[in-house]
Amino acid sequence: MKILVVNAGSSSLKYQVIDGETEERLGKGLIDRIGFTGSGIKQECTDGRKFFCKKDLKNHTEAFSLLMEALLDPENGIISSMSEIKAIGHRVLHSAEDFSESVLVTPEVLRICKKNAPLGALHMPANISCIESCLELTPNTPNVAVFDTSFHLTMPKHAYMYAIKYEDYEKYQLRKYGFHGTSHRFVSGEAIKALGEKANLRIVTCHLGNGSSLAAIKDGKCIDTTMGLTPLEGLVMGTRSGDIDPAAVGYLAEKKNLTTSQVIDYLNKECGFLGLCGYSDCRDIVELYKQGDMKAQIALDLFAYRIKKYIGAYFVALGGLDCIVFTGGIGENSRFARKLIMDGLEVLGVDFDFPKNEIAEKGQFAELSKPSSSVKVLLIPTNEELVIARDSKRIVSELGL
Amino acid sequence: MKILVVNAGSSSLKYQVIDGETEERLGKGLIDRIGFTGSGIKQECTDGRKFFCKKDLKNHTEAFSLLMEALLDPENGIISSMSEIKAIGHRVLHSAEDFSESVLVTPEVLRICKKNAPLGALHMPANISCIESCLELTPNTPNVAVFDTSFHLTMPKHAYMYAIKYEDYEKYQLRKYGFHGTSHRFVSGEAIKALGEKANLRIVTCHLGNGSSLAAIKDGKCIDTTMGLTPLEGLVMGTRSGDIDPAAVGYLAEKKNLTTSQVIDYLNKECGFLGLCGYSDCRDIVELYKQGDMKAQIALDLFAYRIKKYIGAYFVALGGLDCIVFTGGIGENSRFARKLIMDGLEVLGVDFDFPKNEIAEKGQFAELSKPSSSVKVLLIPTNEELVIARDSKRIVSELGL
Repeated sequence: MKILVVNAGSSSLKYQVIDGETEERLGKGLIDRIGFTGSGIKQECTDGRKFFCKKDLKNHTEAFSLLMEALLDPENGIISSMSEIKAIGHRVLHSAEDFSESVLVTPEVLRICKKNAPLGALHMPANISCIESCLELTPNTPNVAVFDTSFHLTMPKHAYMYAIKYEDYEKYQLRKYGFHGTSHRFVSGEAIKALGEKANLRIVTCHLGNGSSLAAIKDGKCIDTTMGLTPLEGLVMGTRSGDIDPAAVGYLAEKKNLTTSQVIDYLNKECGFLGLCGYSDCRDIVELYKQGDMKAQIALDLFAYRIKKYIGAYFVALGGLDCIVFTGGIGENSRFARKLIMDGLEVLGVDFDFPKNEIAEKGQFAELSKPSSSVKVLLIPTNEELVIARDSKRIVSELGL
Repeated sequence: MKILVVNAGSSSLKYQVIDGETEERLGKGLIDRIGFTGSGIKQECTDGRKFFCKKDLKNHTEAFSLLMEALLDPENGIISSMSEIKAIGHRVLHSAEDFSESVLVTPEVLRICKKNAPLGALHMPANISCIESCLELTPNTPNVAVFDTSFHLTMPKHAYMYAIKYEDYEKYQLRKYGFHGTSHRFVSGEAIKALGEKANLRIVTCHLGNGSSLAAIKDGKCIDTTMGLTPLEGLVMGTRSGDIDPAAVGYLAEKKNLTTSQVIDYLNKECGFLGLCGYSDCRDIVELYKQGDMKAQIALDLFAYRIKKYIGAYFVALGGLDCIVFTGGIGENSRFARKLIMDGLEVLGVDFDFPKNEIAEKGQFAELSKPSSSVKVLLIPTNEELVIARDSKRIVSELGL
């Protein structure tokens, strides 16, 4: 059973074809600049064959049509007939409070997604338009929606509520949702396996990339996370400020003469690492840090300090800690960032193996704590596409589709 | 040496007269509705004599003039000549980065305070106008400014910086300042005495009242605090939301059709306890909680959970914990709130004496942890006016004024 996994952004479309039985990736591709001139597709089969094509694409329907062309290309395609694809799994940003797990897309599901679109104004329209394109162009293939937020829907009220008017929470669904759910779910599941499937394990998963979030997970269920209503809250990120006095939005609006939405844009796109030191890529910043660059040091020190504080907060929320997991582009690849974060966590029972961290292979599973450490520290590469493929396979199998 | 301690709000003026030697309070008073009709003064001597007067007051100068009248009232006054007052100590909201301790008010100090007024748009104009009234009406009495933020100026960069554009931090002084500094300083000082003046003590002070904040204090110096650029950030408060996704400001502006400053007003005045359950006074909410009221339970659970998380965060920031201090209206008086907060902190080495908490006298010093607890929990009544009087006395004495 082959599964097509699709991740639609506002002007892009990433995809993979995964064999549902072997869980092997058969190929992957990227379409970019949808709706702009100069759009096109790049596809690569796992056996090395490549497919390129430049073509102006007005919308996600035209993009998906080109995607099918690439998949089916006689010479460099990934499959020979669309009927080989037994399910299309879609990454969908926002479940609101409606979907606590992945679901088969039905007209009702699509209606609810549309209702929830304002909660993810940047991604939801693309997610929905991509699903509709699939329904139109491959009407016989089932579509599965895998939400980036639904893993966090197990959070208790005291973790997900903000202290605003209760009626505004109800009326506007204004609460903490959290994101990167598919990743937190995948790596916490792998950690539980690695720790011997014991009950009540208390885990903090650190998904650190261009966007970053932490999740506190007890017995496999999320009980708290750092991102909020939107992916802006929480940690210091590539271009996002993370936590800041909400009154700073008003202060910035006045000082810089901006509208509210311009300030939110500023906090999303011009702040974080980029705002502090002029670079958004952690690799550049680590280099500058080592050379003694003051602003690079501030950027990474803020990043690490805030993560340490959240790990301390979750230590209390979880009632102790068994495991910390690093994943995501920075978490899997930056020894330097991991070192900064782990420094000072002895007080929580973490005995980090600093020399081992220095030789850990990038993106490879590794145990980074000493054997005697009461808190295990693991590097676990994430694989969100695999989770989407697994959910899609399970749902279409269960429904006999 | 008698000290007049003055705390000016936008339309109010609270004051005390304190004997600098015995540290006894000789009397206190309140002027309200300054700038409105129906304003007036209430004053009470420690020996029980009272002074009342209704009089329309246009501004702080007229208010301070009435204050002098009350102080000097032949029958019910507190002093018999203004020359008895050797210093006037003013609570001033915001030091910005300019004053790391209390200072004698000079024209230069006043100039800097005016420059910093936009950082505390609600309080600073009143503080400044009150100082100017004193300079005008009692030109021979030295004035001392005691800042609510200066205790926190020892925070390291990684604690006080937000992840915004570095140049905007510099240009607009946009950073975390923290408030309630006088209270955190006083109770942490008392805690250090109670713990035997050991070096490197690691303390979390919980000032919980209508406004609430925590401070992490190492070796007598603040290293982190929950309030930020303004007193809106951090904990759930009487009417303030505390922490919330900054993007929620944009979401609320759009959904409720409000300007940025209207949203910030909403977060300051209509949220927190009041927004969640309709009551802002913790005593009312505790009663409802005990009766099983769902919204009261959410309000207090959010309040307690967020404090627990910050204590966990500061446990890491401090590298361990020796003492937690409760102070402020809720911290000193609400056994129920303290119980909710302490529940679950065993994991940090806190062995809270729950039965002892139930019989602790309101507003009286008490040790609330068991003798074996590795973290001491203390109830210490705060006294900000005494700190202001002490600073004022010290500064005028040192300068030989």
